[in-house]
Amino acid sequence: MDVKLIKPFRSAVQHVFRTMVGSEVSVGQPYVKDDGAATADVSGVIGLSGDATGCVVLSYPTEVACKVASAFAGVEIDKDHEDFADAIGELTNMVAGNAKKDLHGLKIGISMPSVVIGAKHVISRSRAAPRLVIPCRVEQGRFQVEVALRVDKPAALPVGAGR
Amino acid sequence: MDVKLIKPFRSAVQHVFRTMVGSEVSVGQPYVKDDGAATADVSGVIGLSGDATGCVVLSYPTEVACKVASAFAGVEIDKDHEDFADAIGELTNMVAGNAKKDLHGLKIGISMPSVVIGAKHVISRSRAAPRLVIPCRVEQGRFQVEVALRVDKPAALPVGAGR
Repeated sequence: MDVKLIKPFRSAVQHVFRTMVGSEVSVGQPYVKDDGAATADVSGVIGLSGDATGCVVLSYPTEVACKVASAFAGVEIDKDHEDFADAIGELTNMVAGNAKKDLHGLKIGISMPSVVIGAKHVISRSRAAPRLVIPCRVEQGRFQVEVALRVDKPAALPVGAGR
Repeated sequence: MDVKLIKPFRSAVQHVFRTMVGSEVSVGQPYVKDDGAATADVSGVIGLSGDATGCVVLSYPTEVACKVASAFAGVEIDKDHEDFADAIGELTNMVAGNAKKDLHGLKIGISMPSVVIGAKHVISRSRAAPRLVIPCRVEQGRFQVEVALRVDKPAALPVGAGR
């Protein structure tokens, strides 16, 4: 994917975490996902389709996911809480929705999020569609945002993606 | 979700496995996913958006996933093979794409698939968006297809969904 397309997602995670979790996100240098990718315990996965096809994944260690979900919900939530998965899914949805707004010129739809819970799982890299990983750090700990996006309508390359 | 919407997905998994894996799929009675859902080792997750918003997940035990990926690829593939995730992702993509054709009247886009690899993970149920599970059995073993779909354009309820 075009590295320039990563910027709306970086901005989106910072904006959503600042406004909805109350945490400033420090983002590291994005890199292309390879076989050495870190495992995760909780992942929110959402799909994008329309003028571009892709997906966004937010992956956390259990402890970080619980702290983030609690800050988002405003009440203590552990991973067995009935609202835990919906909180993680909704945050994923908000990041995708916020990024979409900055992908000007591309009409993109956002799917329903799926939340994966399982110690040390991997969201596999794909040979067919490389993924970029954005390492993130908040006061609750480290997590990562993973983005794959293939623009199917090249004439409409996003104006806002280069800011 | 409307139970009638499950039929295109049931037909799609049977068609795709018959033509691409060479296996007849016996499908059990669909049920609403609850906390007692079985764990999986390998899951292909894909999103749907447009006139309806949703997701499709195909979840397997490791052994079944390897056998299915091998039959699909026509060569022996284990879970560490570089093409394993892409094979599982592509099968997920084909099931979603085939189901979409039968959701007449609904313009739906399909996202990029994500493949989760990790022993005993759960794709969490959601209180916000109930999921239907279709239990499936092929000669390679058992797996399950999970579907959530919310029609955002009710006037266009699919003609083909009731067949």
